[in-house]
This record gives sequence, structure tokens and C-alpha cells, in this order.
Amino acid sequence: MTIIVQKFGGTSVATPERIRHVAEHALITQAKGHQVVIVTSAMSGETDRLLGLAHAVAKDPTTRETDVVVSTGEQVSVGLIAAAIHDMGGKAISLLGFQIPILTDGVFMKSRMTAVSTDAITAALNKGNIVVLPGFQGITPQGEITTLGRGGSDTSAVAIAAALKADCEIYTDVDGVYSADPRMVPNAQKIHRISYEELMEMASAGAKVMQMRSVELAAKYNVPLHIRSSFHNVEGTWVTDETPEMESVMVSSITSTMHESRIAVRDIPDRCGLVAQLFEPMANSNINVDMIVQTVNTEGLSSVAFTVGKEDLKKAMQLTENGAKEIGAGRVEVAGDVSKVSAVGLGMRSHAGVAVRMFKTLAALNINIQSITTSEIKISVIIEMARAAEAVKALHTAFGLDKPQT
Amino acid sequence: MTIIVQKFGGTSVATPERIRHVAEHALITQAKGHQVVIVTSAMSGETDRLLGLAHAVAKDPTTRETDVVVSTGEQVSVGLIAAAIHDMGGKAISLLGFQIPILTDGVFMKSRMTAVSTDAITAALNKGNIVVLPGFQGITPQGEITTLGRGGSDTSAVAIAAALKADCEIYTDVDGVYSADPRMVPNAQKIHRISYEELMEMASAGAKVMQMRSVELAAKYNVPLHIRSSFHNVEGTWVTDETPEMESVMVSSITSTMHESRIAVRDIPDRCGLVAQLFEPMANSNINVDMIVQTVNTEGLSSVAFTVGKEDLKKAMQLTENGAKEIGAGRVEVAGDVSKVSAVGLGMRSHAGVAVRMFKTLAALNINIQSITTSEIKISVIIEMARAAEAVKALHTAFGLDKPQT
Repeated sequence: MTIIVQKFGGTSVATPERIRHVAEHALITQAKGHQVVIVTSAMSGETDRLLGLAHAVAKDPTTRETDVVVSTGEQVSVGLIAAAIHDMGGKAISLLGFQIPILTDGVFMKSRMTAVSTDAITAALNKGNIVVLPGFQGITPQGEITTLGRGGSDTSAVAIAAALKADCEIYTDVDGVYSADPRMVPNAQKIHRISYEELMEMASAGAKVMQMRSVELAAKYNVPLHIRSSFHNVEGTWVTDETPEMESVMVSSITSTMHESRIAVRDIPDRCGLVAQLFEPMANSNINVDMIVQTVNTEGLSSVAFTVGKEDLKKAMQLTENGAKEIGAGRVEVAGDVSKVSAVGLGMRSHAGVAVRMFKTLAALNINIQSITTSEIKISVIIEMARAAEAVKALHTAFGLDKPQT
Repeated sequence: MTIIVQKFGGTSVATPERIRHVAEHALITQAKGHQVVIVTSAMSGETDRLLGLAHAVAKDPTTRETDVVVSTGEQVSVGLIAAAIHDMGGKAISLLGFQIPILTDGVFMKSRMTAVSTDAITAALNKGNIVVLPGFQGITPQGEITTLGRGGSDTSAVAIAAALKADCEIYTDVDGVYSADPRMVPNAQKIHRISYEELMEMASAGAKVMQMRSVELAAKYNVPLHIRSSFHNVEGTWVTDETPEMESVMVSSITSTMHESRIAVRDIPDRCGLVAQLFEPMANSNINVDMIVQTVNTEGLSSVAFTVGKEDLKKAMQLTENGAKEIGAGRVEVAGDVSKVSAVGLGMRSHAGVAVRMFKTLAALNINIQSITTSEIKISVIIEMARAAEAVKALHTAFGLDKPQT
């Protein structure tokens, strides 16, 4: 009997009707001869409502108590799903972070899972239960409730699937991974099969399909992912180890991020370790820094530019300005509302000329490139946000992605 | 340094502003040199919203999962209060049922506390924290979340105060205990000091000041209660062991219940234990049966009448009809929408004629009495609900309660 972990996001459990749909779906899967574990997010909007309450009682609510408040969102979902399954004549049991337990490190609001116990889950499965677990949260060895940060439910599902050696189905409001955001590119095509690595690069490049860390984890433990719609019963996108066919596609998707800010520090003295000193406080504050580019001028002074998300900008600016003073660097500049546009594809490894085609396409549109970074299977550029949609559409066409996959 | 347990009900934490008010109030108490423990209910309306969700996904949601869902209400409150105290520069920590722990028996939705550990609470207090605890819930030794049933937050507060040997302040939306419900009797007067026993009889007689079981517990452990308003800083009602002065008042209050139903079983054969057999299944289902009256007719057959609350009527009727068949009794009759009107007072012990005055007052209004029960300090009658308000008002006047207490 195989175990299937089914992860449902907030929109999939947004209303009592949808929760009943989830329950029914799990029962159908069970009836096909599988053991089923559900991992669920909070009902859509609930996490924001709870965060809103926390910010209404305190300007800067402590992270410990915020986690106590916010973690109730998933707790409600698990209880409701289990109750709905019972109501349909099935057997189900919800287990919370402290009952499983899912252990995390001690960082409130941005925790990482350190261990998932399977004993309680397996015992419940073997009694014929569908086991319903909360995503996004866990407990420290000291018994403190911690959450994993936004999107953490995906990571929970993958970690639980890895621990149970199960397949992992990710149910979402889109029916798979697309070659670009369909809201931006009407011709975007569903991708049938993609590698972990590509999906990771897409996630880091702004595609909101799954949280980066969760894909990383799936790759590490080789958990097959099936990203599919919770509304339509159609095959979605399979995410697996790479296959030879995947390499034949030069670029598989074009992605973009919005509302990033580009921070630049000028005139950094040429001394070893100064740049590290600049970034260390941000790492300690769990701020995601991206697109780091360093240039050296003729006098031996260097500049460093990088991007941060909107939510981290204030803190990042404060830390960077302090840091620049400490290391004797020059002024700190910030450009708000930039966009990172990326082309991702395993085929880049074997196909030359991807970068050239990308720059030519943007040049033809007179779009100015502010920074460039590349990885083995991704090229990213920073451009003005106002022109991002236009750039994505042009690149989607330029790399031949407008046609359905064969 | 004395410890004070402050219990806040749902209306006291209904909005972010009120939560900040609670935080401020606790900080003021702490500044006076006390150690403060807060026990809180869910935000007003939240428990009903959560129950509504459970009933929207399942016709008859399992009690285990309902407790998982409903217990989040208090969890949100404790996190918000602790965050608000931090925001005001204070030190606070929330502790949940499994973190304290508060142990309960295994009855979901109607659990009883079996033990309150004070180690974690005391340790947190001694670090200068205001400790914020959820009312209404606990955990079984097996780690299952259980709730105590409606009004259980009072019981939580008293049990915690007893364990900590603390005073217990009950903050509510009225400023004390009144001689009758002020919405029904405009002349109702605030009672300065009342005995546990009177308040218990009042609670069982329908006064919604505090949950019965919580007063019982306060009496057992001699926890001084101060019932007071969370909106106005005025002295409320003290509930303590009885004092000689209390006996000088014949009747201290008139109370009433609404929407009860009276069930009668006719023609019960005269055999030992049959009546017990009738009530046993209801006790097992945790149905509160009240006002049991048995009459024996000339043929040796007896009738038993009793009342149950609206929420238990359906189940109680089903169990009673089965039971009546089993013991060979006659028909089962039900009268919906009756009211129990009670006069309560320690002085009844030493003053004769309370019953006579009560019956005369009702007779003068032509109100028919369907059942009568008495305890040492209470007389209760069942009457038609439509006439309850009239009866309460007349009795309030008849027992001299319309004048302010001296």
C-alpha cells in the first residue's frame, strides 16, 4: 500500500464547501487503495486576518506570540477537514505540531524543520485513518510553537512525504507549472514534466508555484511532486529528477518578480572581508538578499549592488547604512520597484547563445538592464518594474514557448 | 508578593482596543507589587464562529475535532494579550494547555480538569512575566486537546488560582452580582458580598454571572472571588465563605431560566431502581437533568417529571422514550418553553415562610406552578415561560429587594 501526501493551499480550503471537496477527494484516493496524509494551509485570508490582529494590538508584535496566534489558522483547517471526512463516513484524525511531533529550530516565524516523527502518523494510518496535519508549523524541543514562514506548508508536506517515503501531491489554484505566468502571458503553456533544479530556479526567480525550500527538500530526498489543480481533476506537472529529454529544451520558462528594491553601496575600500561584514547582519536577520553584483573601479574601490524584497527593505536599508559606515564605504543608493526577469532551462547547459538572445530581445525594446546574474541554468536581469510584463512576453516568444508542448 | 489571577471574558477581549485595555490593566496591577496571571476567553463571537464552521463542514462534527477547532479561540487571545503587554514595555508570556500543562479527563467538549501544574507558571512569574493562559481548555494525559464546555474559562481561572493560592478576579460585562437580572428587573441591586453557596444556587438557577462548577471549585479551595466590570473601575461583588450578616437577608436574589423543557414519564411500575435506569443513559451522555419530581398515584404507579435545557432536549427525549419502553412505563410527555424561577438566600435557613410568600405572590398573578423543588437555601418553581419576567419582578418586590443594600 503506497502512502500519498496531499497538500492543500489556502484557496483549496477557503470555504466549508471546498473543505468538503478536499475530504471527498482524500476519501476517493483512499478507496483506490492508498494511505492518505493531508497537509493543509490555513483557510485563505485567515493568516492575514490573524497577522492583522497581532499588528492591531502591538506595533511590532513579538515573534513568539505572533506564532502562537498565527498557528491557529492551520489548526482550524485540520480539525475541519477531519470532521468533514467523519461526516462522510470515513475515518480521520488530526494531529498538531506537538502531537506528531514536527520539530523545528528555535527561530520564530522563520523556523526550519529539524525532524519529523512518523510513529504517530503511521500508527493512525494503520488504523485506517486519513491523517490530517497542519502545514507551516512545528514545535521546538522546548515545546514552543514556531512557524516556518510564508509558504511553509509546501515544505511541511515535502518533509512529511520524505519521512514517510511517500509521493507528494501539491494541490493549488493553478493546474500545473507554466512556461510563464498565464496572467502576464496569455500564450503560456503547461509544462508536463520538469526537473527539481529548474523548478528551484523558477521559484527563486519569482514563480509562485511552490516555495523554493520545499523543492530543495524534494530534490534532496527525491520525493516525486505532482503539482495539480484542486478544482479540476486533470494531470498537472510532475517534478522529478532530470531526464535526458528535459535537456532538449533550451529555456523552459520565463519568470519575473515584482516590487523588489535594488540597494547599491559605493566606494568600498579594497580590504578582504569587508563585503562579508556588510552582508552578515542581514543574514542574521534572515533577510533574503539576491542578485549580488560587485564591480571594481579604477582606483581600487568597489561597489556592491543587491536586491531585497519589499517586506525587508526598511530593515535592510538600516543594516546596510550602519554597515557602510562601519567599513568606511561611501553612499548607499536605493532604487525601488525594480523587477527581476529570468529565463530558466536545463538546456542552457548544452545550448549556447541564450544570454545573447535575451539581451538582444530586451535591447530591441529599449529596456535598460541594471544588473545581470547567471547560474548554470538561469539568466536573470534587473529592469524597471513598469516594463517587466512587456519583457516577459517578448522573451516568451523569443524562446519559442508560445506553442503547446508536444 | 501576592499572586492575582485575572479572568477576562469574551466581551473584555472583543476588539484590539479592549485587548490593549486588558494589557494595561494587568500592568497596573503588577506595578502595585503583585504577580499577575491572566486567564482569557476567546474574543467575543469567536467560539460561535468556529462552531459554525465545524457545523458547516459536518452535520454532527466529532467532538475531538470540534475541540481542535474551538480551542484556537483562546489561543489567539493569549497570544494577542501577551503581544500587547510587550508592546507597552512589559514582560509577558503565553502558555498553552500542553505547555502548562492543564490536565483534563478524556471527555471532549465537556471535560473536567484533573490537575494544574504550577511549575511553568511560577517559573515565568519569577522572571517578571505576566503569564497569559487560555481558559476553557486543557490536555489529556495522552496529549489530546479537550475543552471544558461553555463557561469553562471561569473554572480554569479558579482552578489556576487555587493551584497558585491566589485571589481570583472575574472581569465581566456587568459590574457585579445583582439581586435579579437588571434587564428584567430595572430595580435590581448590586450585592456587595455573597456566599459561595448562594452564588452556586443562583448559577444553577439560571443567573449567568459565573459557571456553577467554577463557584463550586472556589468554595472547595476557598478561593476569594471578586466579580467586577472590565469597563468601569468600581468595586464589584465579593464571593467568600459565609458570614453571620449574610444570614440576616432572607432572600438575596430572584433568578430565572428560559427555554427549558419539562419531560414527564407516566405510569412507571413500582419496582426498585427503575427510575435510576431511566436517568442513567442521560448521565452517561452528560445531559444536565434538573427539577426532578416524582409522584405516586393510588394504583402504585408513579410519574417522574424533570427539566432539561433546549440544547439537550432532542437527545434527552430519545433516551427517555427508549428508557420508558425498557422499564415498561407509560407515555412520555413534553412541555417546551417553560421557565424555572427561583428565590435564593442563606436567610431561608432561619426565616420561615419564604415558600408561602412565593406561592402567594404567584397565585395573586394567576400564574400556574407546574413543579416545585427546594434546597436548603433555594426554592424553584416551573412556570410557563411567557410569564417568567412578570413573576421575577413581582417576587423581587415581594422579598424587599427593590431598595439599595445598606
